[in-house]
Amino acid sequence: MLLIPIGYFHGSTTDKHRAPRQPNPEHGIDGIIKLDKGYDFEQALIDLETFSHIWVIYGFHKANGWKPMVLPPRGEKKRGVFATRSPYRPNSIGISVVKLSNINGLNITITGTDLLDGTPIFDIKPYIPYADAQYEANAGWLDGLNHEETEVLVTEDLTHMLDDEEIARIIKHAEQSLRDSPLPHPYRRIKHIEGNVYELSIKEWRLLYRIINERKVIIEAITQTGSMK
Amino acid sequence: MLLIPIGYFHGSTTDKHRAPRQPNPEHGIDGIIKLDKGYDFEQALIDLETFSHIWVIYGFHKANGWKPMVLPPRGEKKRGVFATRSPYRPNSIGISVVKLSNINGLNITITGTDLLDGTPIFDIKPYIPYADAQYEANAGWLDGLNHEETEVLVTEDLTHMLDDEEIARIIKHAEQSLRDSPLPHPYRRIKHIEGNVYELSIKEWRLLYRIINERKVIIEAITQTGSMK
Repeated sequence: MLLIPIGYFHGSTTDKHRAPRQPNPEHGIDGIIKLDKGYDFEQALIDLETFSHIWVIYGFHKANGWKPMVLPPRGEKKRGVFATRSPYRPNSIGISVVKLSNINGLNITITGTDLLDGTPIFDIKPYIPYADAQYEANAGWLDGLNHEETEVLVTEDLTHMLDDEEIARIIKHAEQSLRDSPLPHPYRRIKHIEGNVYELSIKEWRLLYRIINERKVIIEAITQTGSMK
Repeated sequence: MLLIPIGYFHGSTTDKHRAPRQPNPEHGIDGIIKLDKGYDFEQALIDLETFSHIWVIYGFHKANGWKPMVLPPRGEKKRGVFATRSPYRPNSIGISVVKLSNINGLNITITGTDLLDGTPIFDIKPYIPYADAQYEANAGWLDGLNHEETEVLVTEDLTHMLDDEEIARIIKHAEQSLRDSPLPHPYRRIKHIEGNVYELSIKEWRLLYRIINERKVIIEAITQTGSMK
């Protein structure tokens, strides 16, 4: 079956490593789905604004090829790709439920998404609680993991640097990355420095942080390396 | 984007008008997704059995073309297709959460589905409650409808006929069809006979039923017409 995009997502996240692992109204990204003109999509959108939440069906446009087994960001062993929401699927389709903020013509503003800028959108469906909210469902192997997020703090010195827009963005990215777990992982560029001190690399930035305990880390320094790519 | 089926659904429902309108563990259909051999899907399925519910991403293979506005089975006015789960979408992709019963090699037994026999399957994803169950979501324009289902009874005379497999199947189909609403609707072949008596046509069968009240109907007779197509 050939899927034709009905439009594209426009948001601030272009790098797939920056996307939150699961959409989350609190930490998720806001953005706009702009549907294409000339296809009567204005009519197709009628009544959609009566829903608080919608499903977005989209393409993982930055995933190349598929793998039968993948290492999930919060697991320590590989899992079958069908047992994960990983983008590396035989058909690279993603589904995410997001909050619907506003519809203006062909523009749909959504919040709490994990979509990257430029993501092709294939379908929009209403979220229907009595069909979609399965209260008795378990979370499979994820139930075995600790769902508590790690709190990420910064030292007082660093808070002064947050006036710099780029530094604020990098710190925010680091928070997102360390929240799942502050320990080294193949999907994160983390180096053990000494004791409970680690270094996280994001682009040309290096962040030193200290693991207070499994649920609390503090970022103590941020430096920029020579390479300015 | 080109979607290649990873397998097909095998179930007892072949006629799209027989499919339940929404998947429902109580009234839904059971069946088996048989994944294709030779693609390492055995590995891709590893750990999926730890989940109680899964998402099935599939093609509405019996829907031809799309319509910007559709008449939902339980509404009285047309709605934008993106505000419905209708199959007549620009990209005819369906998503349904179903209960996972069993995985045996490449065969996945599921319950509570609305899939038709022969449905192409494009993806399987775990249902993750903390991402997918949106407790605070509303049901949009559906909230304005009465969600109570109509109880469908049959007379004692008719219960004797249920030994006949074909008749039992037609009665079950009628129950499914009338449960939403027993009143005439463009998607149901219902004729007003007289007073509170109506006739429902399913294939070459004619069922006479009486509307006791909006929440209760009783099927009183079933006959077969001459045409045996």
